[in-house]
Amino acid sequence: MLGLMQRHSLSISSLIDFAERQHGDAEIVSRRVEGDLHRTTWAAVARRARQIANGLEAFQLAFSDRVGTIAWNGYRHLELYYGVSASGRVLHTVNPRLHPEQIAWIINHAEDRVVCFETTFLPLVKAIYKECPKVKHWIVLCEADRMPTDDDLPGLISYEEWINSHSDQYRWPEIDEYAASSMCYTSGTTGHPKAVVYSHRSTVLHAYASALPNAFGLSERDSVLPAVPMFHVNSWGLPYSTAIAGCKVVFPGPGLDGKSLYELMESEGVTLAAGVPTVWQGLLEHVKQNGLRFSTLNRTVVGGAACPPAMIQVFQEGFGVEVLHAWGMTELSPIGTVCSLKNNQLNLPPEEQVKLRAKQGRALYGIELEIFDELGKLLPHDGKAYGSLMARGHWVVGEYFRPDDLSSSLVNGWFPTGDVATIDGDGFVQITDRNKDMIKSGGEWISSIEIENIAMAHPSVQMAACIGIKHPKWDERPIICVVKRPGAEVTREELLAFYEGKVSKWQIPDDVVFLDSIPMGATGKMLKTKLREHLINHRLPQT
Amino acid sequence: MLGLMQRHSLSISSLIDFAERQHGDAEIVSRRVEGDLHRTTWAAVARRARQIANGLEAFQLAFSDRVGTIAWNGYRHLELYYGVSASGRVLHTVNPRLHPEQIAWIINHAEDRVVCFETTFLPLVKAIYKECPKVKHWIVLCEADRMPTDDDLPGLISYEEWINSHSDQYRWPEIDEYAASSMCYTSGTTGHPKAVVYSHRSTVLHAYASALPNAFGLSERDSVLPAVPMFHVNSWGLPYSTAIAGCKVVFPGPGLDGKSLYELMESEGVTLAAGVPTVWQGLLEHVKQNGLRFSTLNRTVVGGAACPPAMIQVFQEGFGVEVLHAWGMTELSPIGTVCSLKNNQLNLPPEEQVKLRAKQGRALYGIELEIFDELGKLLPHDGKAYGSLMARGHWVVGEYFRPDDLSSSLVNGWFPTGDVATIDGDGFVQITDRNKDMIKSGGEWISSIEIENIAMAHPSVQMAACIGIKHPKWDERPIICVVKRPGAEVTREELLAFYEGKVSKWQIPDDVVFLDSIPMGATGKMLKTKLREHLINHRLPQT
Repeated sequence: MLGLMQRHSLSISSLIDFAERQHGDAEIVSRRVEGDLHRTTWAAVARRARQIANGLEAFQLAFSDRVGTIAWNGYRHLELYYGVSASGRVLHTVNPRLHPEQIAWIINHAEDRVVCFETTFLPLVKAIYKECPKVKHWIVLCEADRMPTDDDLPGLISYEEWINSHSDQYRWPEIDEYAASSMCYTSGTTGHPKAVVYSHRSTVLHAYASALPNAFGLSERDSVLPAVPMFHVNSWGLPYSTAIAGCKVVFPGPGLDGKSLYELMESEGVTLAAGVPTVWQGLLEHVKQNGLRFSTLNRTVVGGAACPPAMIQVFQEGFGVEVLHAWGMTELSPIGTVCSLKNNQLNLPPEEQVKLRAKQGRALYGIELEIFDELGKLLPHDGKAYGSLMARGHWVVGEYFRPDDLSSSLVNGWFPTGDVATIDGDGFVQITDRNKDMIKSGGEWISSIEIENIAMAHPSVQMAACIGIKHPKWDERPIICVVKRPGAEVTREELLAFYEGKVSKWQIPDDVVFLDSIPMGATGKMLKTKLREHLINHRLPQT
Repeated sequence: MLGLMQRHSLSISSLIDFAERQHGDAEIVSRRVEGDLHRTTWAAVARRARQIANGLEAFQLAFSDRVGTIAWNGYRHLELYYGVSASGRVLHTVNPRLHPEQIAWIINHAEDRVVCFETTFLPLVKAIYKECPKVKHWIVLCEADRMPTDDDLPGLISYEEWINSHSDQYRWPEIDEYAASSMCYTSGTTGHPKAVVYSHRSTVLHAYASALPNAFGLSERDSVLPAVPMFHVNSWGLPYSTAIAGCKVVFPGPGLDGKSLYELMESEGVTLAAGVPTVWQGLLEHVKQNGLRFSTLNRTVVGGAACPPAMIQVFQEGFGVEVLHAWGMTELSPIGTVCSLKNNQLNLPPEEQVKLRAKQGRALYGIELEIFDELGKLLPHDGKAYGSLMARGHWVVGEYFRPDDLSSSLVNGWFPTGDVATIDGDGFVQITDRNKDMIKSGGEWISSIEIENIAMAHPSVQMAACIGIKHPKWDERPIICVVKRPGAEVTREELLAFYEGKVSKWQIPDDVVFLDSIPMGATGKMLKTKLREHLINHRLPQT
């Protein structure tokens, strides 16, 4: 017997329609590449999204044709998120931090018919233009009078001229909710990048779940600053979830330095900001150095990499900003877990709370997470057993788009995240490491993240990366690579002594390597592969 | 091109699995018919739901077979919500306030195979037992040693004995998300009741949307008291949405008087309570008469009937409790709108805010609401134009279950709610009346709700109902029926004078009728049909 309720598709068009109808006047503020601050509203974004749809019709783009974007976080990118997907095409967000060669490969692999890019990325486009012959239209995200002229790039179109030549009257088509809406390539460190193809359904369900009070808790009383890029991992789904919630959205454009972010937060009354730990590090440095306070910010979502407990403490205790530690990945749309404390946990002493907040939190309603041992046996939720973290649910990848090989397919319906984690009795997941970053010493595993977090808690340390170095007896031994805070000093011996009592003796690194910087990947994560290559001949001291 | 994300059903089993896994220790507190306070947890509810599933297998109930419940708000009813639906059967909640004849008709129409009822309803079951020969098992929601013995009711089964004879090991089946999960009959005042059949999908999407911060804003920090019955309109979906949010739930059982509710709220730290205005009236009377305060309650959802602005004011200004005015109906699962103010509206003066909160609020994300005139023309969202309110969306009825006739089908895909409403530029809906309660005077419409709200703002008035009385010249003229507060006095003339300046002269009632009580229907709504019958010969004074 079937239910007798109406049947409608879960669709991205319904998100922008809703935002226009119910909070059309909520603001969208964007720092543009031109440097100025641009103000618009959800209603205007909706209108311009319909102009895009008409523009794509005029290009005779078919259903499911791909439209690439190489753009910062801003209103035009938001318009494209909706205009492209809601009209039935597939939005392909391209990460400009990848190598030009990889970008060309990605655009060709996705078969983008149109690519929209910011003027900032003109040199990049020059480098790939000839390599991407199937792209029919290159659109520059600017006014007609700011168009670059370049003989190597014939036929560039001004975005503003393009959309303004089209009507804002358009009726979104009815779309199968399982149809592709957007895609994003992972920044695989080996082999070709792999593409995750989201559906209208997965996107809407992810938006519902991530806006819930136990997750981001988004409401129309929020002013949200997404410091996590729209060109990667869908800016954690915020372009969609803020449409449900009717938030004011504040886009920082390319300016992610501490000063720019802080000023924007203060001037636009930002209540929630979302970003990776390295970006928040810059923000906190700026705020501390200048003796500033946050007047409106009350919570920050930290993800993309494990948030060091020391950072949680500074936000919470120093500034009264609640840290919502989160974990996810491109393959999870991207949000898997958010760490919001339970009622009884809020009564724990502050140091216990920080320990809990250092966990990545619990799965959103809509996905399941489990840990398995090497033989595929389910491990208990006791906060101690650690194993391969696997995911299953509405917004978890099923298969990659036209993969080179099938090695990365599901295991009994579960997606292997590549992370190693524990899960406690309340369902709190703690990522102990990436599978490939775990250090095996004398038959035991050492979590590189745990070793890094301790170093990060030292007042003289700005950034720390722990890697394993080959060892004749123990197989591998950990070393800690450290970037010191400007002007701060700490010796090898002091730092090693700092570990005493915090971990078992055999987990203390064998050595400290001081570096000027740690190589970072295109998505703001530390590139430990590079570090390992760089230090392959590092000689451990005799102990 | 299809998205490449995993495909899973939206299912009610995933709700209870989630609650067990992630907040198994959150409490479920129930006032039982025995009078005592029972404490359990989401984890135990999940275990017992699986025992129910095994019990239903033992009864050889097929997929989609109906299981009726005649029960108060309590943990056993919650267990049935999950055990029945998640195992693939259809939960049929029966409203015990209907006439026994109607109840028998409903149980037969739904073809219930099993009926579970509380000891309170033994007399009712006696009255219908013989009329429902297709019910194979009558289960009493009590322990074996409390079982009633009655020769007229052979074969009664003790719920506790039944479920405890079955294992709590059970694997929920995979279910098509469009399959029926539960059903509820509307309390149609004319003709047979009509059944709405919910699906797993509609139920889960409704739960997602209603838990969002702009709606109920449910989180694991909440202790929720549903004073709206689980035997009707799914207790506004709270049995499902609290499972997503991990709330503590406090079930009042049959005790909805002010004193019982207040004591439960205080002892269980209730933060959010949901109920109809008449229930809150009793609560507020108790609190005011005894000079009490709410120590934890911070918001109350008011729906089922329009919330008088005077009540909003008392809650907000007198007690600091935010009123979330809501509107819905059985056919909408039931939540259609919730009134939560937007950022800029929170800065308005209190009296302006009360005006806004007197509106029923905005459609949840997932449904659409529009108003149409008599010719089916779409009316503008200007807060002035009023017309028939129509609904469309994921949790709106498509068709009734085995209807007597097809007169109640959709109009161009829209469900006619039977309400008359305005919608303003922000999407705020205000119900001006039920279609059938509007009063037509001299070719103009008068909103009975507006006239009632003014009377309700008079300090001596406890309850007020406005109906139209036939008039030779004006077609109809409004009169106001009033129940005075205990000990309070007010004359006809004083009350009529109270209207001056508040509405146009021609909208002021022609007469006041003082009554001891106003007839109430099975779902806590005023029965204006009864009132109209009672006053059919009322003679209007000459004016």
